[in-house]
Amino acid sequence: MTDRPRTRLFVDAPLSEGAAVPLEGGRAHYLRTVLRMQPGERVLAFNGRDGEWLAEVAQLGKSGGTLTALRRERDQTGEEGPWLLFAPLKGGRSDSVAEKATELGAAVLHPVFTRRTDVGRVNLERLAANAVEAAEQCERLSVPEVREACPLFKALEGWDPARVLFVAAESGQAMPAVSAVTAQRGRPAAWLLGPEGGFDRAELDGLLHLPFVVPVGLGPRVLRADTAAFAVLAVWQALAGDWTSQGGADSRPPFRDDRG
Amino acid sequence: MTDRPRTRLFVDAPLSEGAAVPLEGGRAHYLRTVLRMQPGERVLAFNGRDGEWLAEVAQLGKSGGTLTALRRERDQTGEEGPWLLFAPLKGGRSDSVAEKATELGAAVLHPVFTRRTDVGRVNLERLAANAVEAAEQCERLSVPEVREACPLFKALEGWDPARVLFVAAESGQAMPAVSAVTAQRGRPAAWLLGPEGGFDRAELDGLLHLPFVVPVGLGPRVLRADTAAFAVLAVWQALAGDWTSQGGADSRPPFRDDRG
Repeated sequence: MTDRPRTRLFVDAPLSEGAAVPLEGGRAHYLRTVLRMQPGERVLAFNGRDGEWLAEVAQLGKSGGTLTALRRERDQTGEEGPWLLFAPLKGGRSDSVAEKATELGAAVLHPVFTRRTDVGRVNLERLAANAVEAAEQCERLSVPEVREACPLFKALEGWDPARVLFVAAESGQAMPAVSAVTAQRGRPAAWLLGPEGGFDRAELDGLLHLPFVVPVGLGPRVLRADTAAFAVLAVWQALAGDWTSQGGADSRPPFRDDRG
Repeated sequence: MTDRPRTRLFVDAPLSEGAAVPLEGGRAHYLRTVLRMQPGERVLAFNGRDGEWLAEVAQLGKSGGTLTALRRERDQTGEEGPWLLFAPLKGGRSDSVAEKATELGAAVLHPVFTRRTDVGRVNLERLAANAVEAAEQCERLSVPEVREACPLFKALEGWDPARVLFVAAESGQAMPAVSAVTAQRGRPAAWLLGPEGGFDRAELDGLLHLPFVVPVGLGPRVLRADTAAFAVLAVWQALAGDWTSQGGADSRPPFRDDRG
């Protein structure tokens, strides 16, 4: 049996031995009234910079609380996940993309408006909240950066050409995913997923002229945009990311929830 | 421009030239009042056996309707997708698994109860409805078979040992997904995904003694069960299924929704 705490919290403050880590009101409220935590109980805390820390609840009140950092449990490691540029989706599907892209290791979540995107606004706070919650649950040491939504080609201005942009192109002519990813392995990567209506032809032509773009096909079925996002991130992680045997060592206990 | 109809319907009846294809009341209602279709308008119909047919609306009434099959647009092809055995999930996540597994080409959806499954019943009709809708949208020629929920080891009684069962094992010792899938390429496949709490240790030990089981690891992050289901199906299709360049020819127009 492990005594690893089940509660993991993403925090802003620096983490070092003995550091007091402030919790804002909503967080303190959750620990106090939902998890019914008491001072002295333990949690894990991470901030994306200082690794994962065992911490103790020092105080929980109505307007906030404090943790005390005790010792580092995991060192911060680089998490070189791919960026995800995606056309915002309706009906909670953007939230689900934020959740699952976080679990699948995306480093950046960037909503981009394409010509056929039929969602006018994006709730960035909700996207970010979904990403934080998913990062806490999936044992990541960081939370993906959520970028301000903008038009597609504005997002590509000043693009570092060293970073390949895989475009899920819904086209019989695009390269199969395995060939595309394998050929670009080792390069920093981003994926672009269009809206449910697909890319406009002129837009796709514009993309295909960019020297860092690689069009990728995703098989004979027409995937929903959210399905495609999950699929490409999984395929990338399996072939070029940290699901490979060369990936980071797995420090977890062998089973996630060992009540046996 | 293509004149391919945008509406695709899964039907039960045989499809052949001139065949009258009955539509039950709910379907007819949908075409009539939601899509506002009129007799003479065209749809595509498939039944999982006779390929995809161009069909014409013959009649739409309150208690049902009829299509007339005109000509075959695509031949039926074998769709040798993997089976998906999964512990049922809470809060609509099983429905989302049915939707996305259909898009990702699963041939069988089989809810199985594991020791830590905390969902007592499965609404098979809703699963099946999600699978039908996804099959219609994603241009599959078939709908996955939805099997009656049962305890995990009952589902494995009489298992054909020629079919590999990949078990998403949440374990640092399991094989990376790419190595596992590549080593078993060409074999009929199934994937088993446990519940959010993971497999019980005794259960996992029981699984690992079965000669057709291959445990697969999914990287250093702890994935939600639904995320894992989408991920493994995508990785399998990319490496061993019809996303490979050796897969079925893509008969679609190059873009899904060419309004340009």
